[in-house]
Amino acid sequence: MKLSTKHLLGIKDLTKGDISLFLDTAVQFKEVLQRPVKKVPSLRDVTIVNLFYENSTRTRISFELAEKRLSADTINFTASGSSVSKGETLLDTVNNILSMKVDMVVMRHSATGAPHFLAQHIPAAIVNAGDGINEHPTQGLLDAFSIREKMGKLEGTKVAIIGDILHSRVAMSNMYLLTKMGAKVTVCGPPTLIPRHIEAAFGVTVNYNLEETLNWCDVANVLRIQLERQNQVLFSSLREYNLSYGISRKLLEGLKKDIVVMHPGPINRGVELDSDVADSGQSIILQQVENGVAVRMAVLYLLSNRNQ
Amino acid sequence: MKLSTKHLLGIKDLTKGDISLFLDTAVQFKEVLQRPVKKVPSLRDVTIVNLFYENSTRTRISFELAEKRLSADTINFTASGSSVSKGETLLDTVNNILSMKVDMVVMRHSATGAPHFLAQHIPAAIVNAGDGINEHPTQGLLDAFSIREKMGKLEGTKVAIIGDILHSRVAMSNMYLLTKMGAKVTVCGPPTLIPRHIEAAFGVTVNYNLEETLNWCDVANVLRIQLERQNQVLFSSLREYNLSYGISRKLLEGLKKDIVVMHPGPINRGVELDSDVADSGQSIILQQVENGVAVRMAVLYLLSNRNQ
Amino acid sequence: MKLSTKHLLGIKDLTKGDISLFLDTAVQFKEVLQRPVKKVPSLRDVTIVNLFYENSTRTRISFELAEKRLSADTINFTASGSSVSKGETLLDTVNNILSMKVDMVVMRHSATGAPHFLAQHIPAAIVNAGDGINEHPTQGLLDAFSIREKMGKLEGTKVAIIGDILHSRVAMSNMYLLTKMGAKVTVCGPPTLIPRHIEAAFGVTVNYNLEETLNWCDVANVLRIQLERQNQVLFSSLREYNLSYGISRKLLEGLKKDIVVMHPGPINRGVELDSDVADSGQSIILQQVENGVAVRMAVLYLLSNRNQ
Repeated sequence: MKLSTKHLLGIKDLTKGDISLFLDTAVQFKEVLQRPVKKVPSLRDVTIVNLFYENSTRTRISFELAEKRLSADTINFTASGSSVSKGETLLDTVNNILSMKVDMVVMRHSATGAPHFLAQHIPAAIVNAGDGINEHPTQGLLDAFSIREKMGKLEGTKVAIIGDILHSRVAMSNMYLLTKMGAKVTVCGPPTLIPRHIEAAFGVTVNYNLEETLNWCDVANVLRIQLERQNQVLFSSLREYNLSYGISRKLLEGLKKDIVVMHPGPINRGVELDSDVADSGQSIILQQVENGVAVRMAVLYLLSNRNQ
Repeated sequence: MKLSTKHLLGIKDLTKGDISLFLDTAVQFKEVLQRPVKKVPSLRDVTIVNLFYENSTRTRISFELAEKRLSADTINFTASGSSVSKGETLLDTVNNILSMKVDMVVMRHSATGAPHFLAQHIPAAIVNAGDGINEHPTQGLLDAFSIREKMGKLEGTKVAIIGDILHSRVAMSNMYLLTKMGAKVTVCGPPTLIPRHIEAAFGVTVNYNLEETLNWCDVANVLRIQLERQNQVLFSSLREYNLSYGISRKLLEGLKKDIVVMHPGPINRGVELDSDVADSGQSIILQQVENGVAVRMAVLYLLSNRNQ
Repeated sequence: MKLSTKHLLGIKDLTKGDISLFLDTAVQFKEVLQRPVKKVPSLRDVTIVNLFYENSTRTRISFELAEKRLSADTINFTASGSSVSKGETLLDTVNNILSMKVDMVVMRHSATGAPHFLAQHIPAAIVNAGDGINEHPTQGLLDAFSIREKMGKLEGTKVAIIGDILHSRVAMSNMYLLTKMGAKVTVCGPPTLIPRHIEAAFGVTVNYNLEETLNWCDVANVLRIQLERQNQVLFSSLREYNLSYGISRKLLEGLKKDIVVMHPGPINRGVELDSDVADSGQSIILQQVENGVAVRMAVLYLLSNRNQ
């Protein structure tokens, strides 16, 4: 099996075969991570630059660990968006770094499409670690990996994505991936935070009622309310959000069955998720984090062309 | 010999046997550091996260070097205190990092008790690299190592701790360690900077007179005046502090014998210590720094359980 | 062959033999960088601290890559200038780091002469990565390497250095190096940005006319306009600078021959260099970046004394 792409820019561009190959390879790397010796020599002599134009401690650490487990050499670069606001400057920066014989670039950028722009101009493999309000494809893959691991399969599994669908790149990558793989997806949140025409565009269902949505689904993927991305006051208070769309123990106990709860982190406890839900046996939040390293190892390994 | 603890949270929790084991193991690692090849494979495949919520270049570099000498993989994480002010958030962050299969956490935090809180909730070994105004146990160990190396033994050795005893975690860890190991300890400084009841609490002697204290001791451990920690004006000026409690060449030359001078660094030259003292043959300040790497190697090695 | 120096503080201190040895060794490391496996064990067990008191992403990444390709262990230290403004504090910091058994120090500092000061007081090898408005010797070496690679030799080659000669450490290191090696050098820029007596001091020619200078030279090394270093308004606008001293495609096409265009980066596109020049076949800017890693590998290797 081979990937149809040399970059991972978004789930949108992937075939079903690509997604399956990423997930199946991640299963093997997860086995490696269960061993006492978690390091493999797969990317020895490969140099990877982590180019983070937006702060993201967790994602950066997850990629860095994946790289070190694969024995790659890593260089970290963190920049404020201001000094690199022009695409041309970004291209210069990346071209410079690549001239130093760097093999792969992992990039997070506040501008939607920044990695796609780069991919048209540079020869190295690019992994999108989140671009603007577009996609966060490795999060999409690790969420799908976690659902498949828990439920046995993606096809036919009912997944609810709950929260701020409009601004969430996690939602975007999840919707592309799950619908491609035959899962059934309902999005749920305040009407102001769900894009119009989303049903036609993504093949998902919209339901504004949280309880109905939870009673329907097998898995609830609860998004983080990202206050820093809101340009308007969309609800009068976080307390009000919590009352309408927050997930409490009591709410879960009232459902007809036990559903699986996911969250990309970091959690706003008491806002979108109450602590006794986040820390309960129904939550697979920490497994998602663990799976994130295995999935990123698979992505870096497959894009490195070392598997041929 | 085995440690009685799986973490290093403070000297307060250690037995005499623990302390001796740390110090004796550090002797072996110091020998390694004298060799041309200073790297040992002891912690190969162990991943350590350095979680610094408070800025500390020297301590962080010392730990990072110790980790690399032991062949561990290291991840650095530096955060401003503001974004992680709640204990619950701290726990989420550390749980996330541990889910990525990290083996040990070295943590500095501005909140007293932060590592103890974590130790109750997470399975990994935690090394306290300084918490609030509580303890800085690896500094205590490296100070004791340096005294033992210079004086031949700790028991019966007369150690003066001089300066801001009230706010110093170095003083705290030194007092716990030295009294446990049978050294005689006098603390000396302005009355406002020495806690009440310290004699009963720690088994140390208080003397407000610097010259008397220096004439008594074998070793003077001079603390850094940490202006950033003072909430009140405790002396009218640094010049006044220097006149009353600063250590000058002239003062040392007037003593009955040659004493050993120590300082945890960084030195405020001309405040608590004059340059011609800091750089004199009586100073073992740079040896302390060197010993710090050996001691931290011993701590990480023993807590990793790789020695069994 | 052996170096006449144990540090690389500036090109000013080097002999012709030193420069040739650096460049010839860099040729060998460049060959290594062309291979699939770019890593060599030359500096295994050597620890290098990158001490950057001034921000410089590119130079820091280039050094870090060079160190990793040589299998050295690296520690990064970045500080704001304010906390380390006194020479004495700098010395304390570096002495502390060296006490931790660090073998080499790569240092960038905003104070002219900072590495020279250190070299008088510490035993480790120091590599100057840029000091104040003095020198940037590894840039000088990589520029010379790139010219020699392109033109076949340095002796007799006509090199124009164009821009803000007064504040540029790149210009300084280039002038020292190229004149020592028998190249012919003309400096060109606004009269206010060219130091008086530069002809006598460096053995170079001054020409305020850009077109004449370009028609004379084989290679144009175009400096970055560093607005952050200007204390006065030296030209009414960047547009005016571009009109008088910026290099455009049209200007190059009007010359009698094809010249080689160099720039130390990052480029202010549309100011000192137009994009269609920077990205043209006459530009060797990205080769300079690539050569930078090879040259820095050579410098670190030769100063480490591992070649004896």
